[in-house]
Order: sequence, then structure tokens, then C-alpha cells
Amino acid sequence: MSRISVLGLGAMGAALAATLIRKGHSVTVWNRTPSRAEPLAGAGARIATNPAEAVAASDLTILCVVDYAAAGAVLAEAQEALRGRDLVNLTNGTPREAKKLAAWAEEKGAAYLDGGIMAIPPMIGETGALILYSGSDAVFERHKPSLDALAESRHLGGDAGLAALYDLALLSGMYGLFSGFLHAGALVASSGRRVGDFLPLLQPWLQAMSGTLPDLAGKIDSGKHSDTVVSNLAMQATALENIARASTEQGVAPDFIEPMLRLAALRIADGHGNDDISGVIETIRRKK
Amino acid sequence: MSRISVLGLGAMGAALAATLIRKGHSVTVWNRTPSRAEPLAGAGARIATNPAEAVAASDLTILCVVDYAAAGAVLAEAQEALRGRDLVNLTNGTPREAKKLAAWAEEKGAAYLDGGIMAIPPMIGETGALILYSGSDAVFERHKPSLDALAESRHLGGDAGLAALYDLALLSGMYGLFSGFLHAGALVASSGRRVGDFLPLLQPWLQAMSGTLPDLAGKIDSGKHSDTVVSNLAMQATALENIARASTEQGVAPDFIEPMLRLAALRIADGHGNDDISGVIETIRRKK
Repeated sequence: MSRISVLGLGAMGAALAATLIRKGHSVTVWNRTPSRAEPLAGAGARIATNPAEAVAASDLTILCVVDYAAAGAVLAEAQEALRGRDLVNLTNGTPREAKKLAAWAEEKGAAYLDGGIMAIPPMIGETGALILYSGSDAVFERHKPSLDALAESRHLGGDAGLAALYDLALLSGMYGLFSGFLHAGALVASSGRRVGDFLPLLQPWLQAMSGTLPDLAGKIDSGKHSDTVVSNLAMQATALENIARASTEQGVAPDFIEPMLRLAALRIADGHGNDDISGVIETIRRKK
Repeated sequence: MSRISVLGLGAMGAALAATLIRKGHSVTVWNRTPSRAEPLAGAGARIATNPAEAVAASDLTILCVVDYAAAGAVLAEAQEALRGRDLVNLTNGTPREAKKLAAWAEEKGAAYLDGGIMAIPPMIGETGALILYSGSDAVFERHKPSLDALAESRHLGGDAGLAALYDLALLSGMYGLFSGFLHAGALVASSGRRVGDFLPLLQPWLQAMSGTLPDLAGKIDSGKHSDTVVSNLAMQATALENIARASTEQGVAPDFIEPMLRLAALRIADGHGNDDISGVIETIRRKK
């Protein structure tokens, strides 16, 4: 079993440390507010009095704090101890923040692996939890058995920013799903019906529509948005306008449907009305 | 087998008529532009020369035209023939439009059933197609075998507007899914990766997240958005801000993520930061 230090004992950091202890690892913990470490000490963790001591105590240090400002501050206090150490940073942030911290950590002599946790704290160590990694392949290979104790582990590539990018891309997909659900739910509720009774229609419908994503992804990757289009943007714009009108009639504000309505119209005005809805992506991408 | 007339032979109307012919019904068709009827005549349909003749020829008339302005115009030409007839209107529109036409048709002595088609034309008559109905239960019961030839048939209730409402609610859910997918795809593509290669992560993730909808629906139906919250709005706002910052850094316009970011912030400012994301629905519903 490995010696692993966990820096940061918020809900997620504490879940990571508790899971590693439970799976038999020798765990050292540190938190800015020391009282958060006490339950873990009771479970068998050693408490470090500062970040440098925690980093020095283990082969692998896992960092999980509130944001990159906190991550930078914690690591700055440990920088003398970083040389030759393996660092896994699971703090939420952007790809740019991850790449910047990776460069800093490597300059201090640490090997840096970034990670994005696709789970909530109670899921850590359970089936269904996924952690995306990017950055040092060596760190990933050396500690894969320990990382696998936390969640299914997936290494995306050497670019340290990729895990954060894919993490935020998955969350974007989820917030789209939730946006559509809330708009649909508001329409259903406006007729006095229960949203729960609508789900037996909505959930299989969304799963069927998710089945069209590979076709749309292929059009995005090839840039050929006009290939084999079944329901073109001009037809979809009519449906979007019906949704907007019905929403107004039912007293539902159109906020969640407005971006697709507006961007589809922009794309049609640019002469792409016969394209598939995949083409709307061109309105939100930086022009090369 | 039934005598059925189909008014309107766009892509969808033609698919409806062709399917009914294929399944052995005696079909009469009419279209404003007569040439669209010719392929169906070749398949065995009788061609009516005007809407009144088509309505008079059958027990059941199915109307499927481009919008309610067209539907009203077609039926106005047939109004003398409507008395005692069964009418199914599959034209896309809003609940208010459906209710208004239902009242008009009933005044003319027709029994009116409204429908929303959850399928594209090639799916008509095939497994996976669904048509939602509302309005006259008698029409639905009398013609269910014929309607089942077109798609799975679901009657939602006597309010003629319900089928349009649920149709547009399902489409809202789909456009939310597509909005999230396009934003996610733009982030992935910004790193030079293929969107198609990202789907093996995205699709199971979305299916898992769809599994949280019953809990959110329960909170909406009860109005208790603060019950058993795992990831509260304040925490989710941090993730949304990370998505927005990362999008800017990656050259992806934040249009699709902006409504959730803004409405979650509104809700938090109103003192609901500890609620679940279900509570965001209160920002888009008309205050009672």
C-alpha cells in the first residue's frame, strides 16, 4: 500500500482521504482549519502541521482545495518539499489554470498530474465515479492502483489542461440537459400537471435524442453540416418559434430557449438554413 | 379498414398518407398544390379536388399543414362538410392555437382531437415513433387502430392544448440537450480534439445525469427545493463560473451557458443558495 498525503479536507478532500484510509493506504492529511482533520485522525490518518510536512511524508500528494488561488497558496508553502515528488491536483478550475500550475510545479521539481472529478463526495470509492486525468503519464502509471481506489481513472493525454477542459465540457452538457428539463418542466407545470408524471415521456425521448449526437458530432468534426440532413435548421427554427410563443402564452420566460432560437436564426440569415443543427456550433467558436 | 382523408401533403402529411395506404386503409388525399398528391394516387389514394370533398369522403380526416393559419384556411373551405365528422389535427402550433381551433371545429359540429408528432417523416409507421393526442376521447377511441398504424399513440387528456404543450416541452428538453452538447463540443474542439471521440464520455454521463431528474421533478412538484440537496446552487454557481471563464479562455462564446449562470446567480441573490438547482425553475415561471 502507498503513502499518500491529502491537502485540503473540504467535503471532497475528506471523502478522498477517508476512501484511501478505508482501502488500506497510509494517509497523511493537512487542512488550513485543523479541526476538519480530526475525524480522519480517528480513522487512522496522520495529521501534518503544514503543507510541506504533508508533502514530505508521502510518495504521492493529492491536492483538493476550493480554487486555484488556494491551490497556489498551499503549494507555495510546500515548495521546498516538492522536488522529486508526485503531485495530483484535483482542484476545480480552468484548463489555463491547470497548465499554469503544472508549469510552476514542474519548475519546482515535482511531477504534475491534473484531474477532474466527475462525482459528488458520497460517490468516491463507489461504482459510477469517474476521475479524468491529464498531464504526467508517469505519475498516472505509478499511482494508478491508488487512484483506481477513488474512482474509475481515465488519462486523456499529456496536456495538463485536458482534464479540466473535459470536466467542464461534461458539466456543460449536464447544464444543457438541466436547462432543457427546467424549461420543459415549467411548460408542463403551467398546465397544472405534475413534472414527475411527465418524466416517463421525457427520459426515453432524451435518450433517443442522445442517439442522434454521433451524427451531429461527425458533422462538427468534418465541418460538413449539410450532409444527409433530416430536419434542417429552417424547419427547426419553426419549432423553436413555436416553443417561444407557447412559452409566452403559458407564462414561462424564454431564457433557456432563447440562445438556440437566436443562434439558429443567425445561422439561417448567413445562408445555412438547409444545414443540420450541428452548424450552430460555428456561431459560438472563435473564427480561425 | 377505415376510410381516412389526409389534408396537407408536405413531407409529414405524405408520410402519414403513405403509411395508411400501406396498412390497408382506404385513403383520400388533398393538397393545395395538386402535384404533391400524384405519387400517393399511384400508391392507391383517391385525390379530392377540394378540402370539403376530402372531409365528406371519410369517417376520419387528418389535417397536417404548415401552421395554424394554413389549418384555419383549409378547414374554412371544408366547414360545410365538418358536421358529424371526426377530425385529427397534427399541425404544429401552440396550445392556445390548438384550443382555439378545437372550439371552432366543435362549433361546426366536428369532434376534434389534437396531436403532436414526436418523429420525423421517415419514422412514421415504424417502431420508436410517438404521437401525443389530446381533446376528444371519443375520436381517439373510435380511431385508435388507425392511429396506432402511424405511431405509438398516447392520449393525454380532454384539454385540446395538452398535446401541443407536451410536444413543445419534449422539444424544449431536446434543445437543452443539443445546447449543452454544442457548448461541450465547442470546448472539446477548441483543444484540437474530435467531438466524436468525446461522445463515449458524454453519452453515459448524460444518461447518469438524466437519472437525477426524478429527484429534481419531485422538488419542483412539492416546491421544496431545499430537501436533501447534495450539490447546492452556490456550489453549482462556482462550476458554472468555471465553465464561463474556461469558455472565454478557449474562444468559445458563452451563449448556451449564460442563462443558467445568470438565473442561478439571481436565485442565490434571492437567498436560495442552499437550494437544489430545481429552484431555478421559479425564476422562469409566472408568479401566481
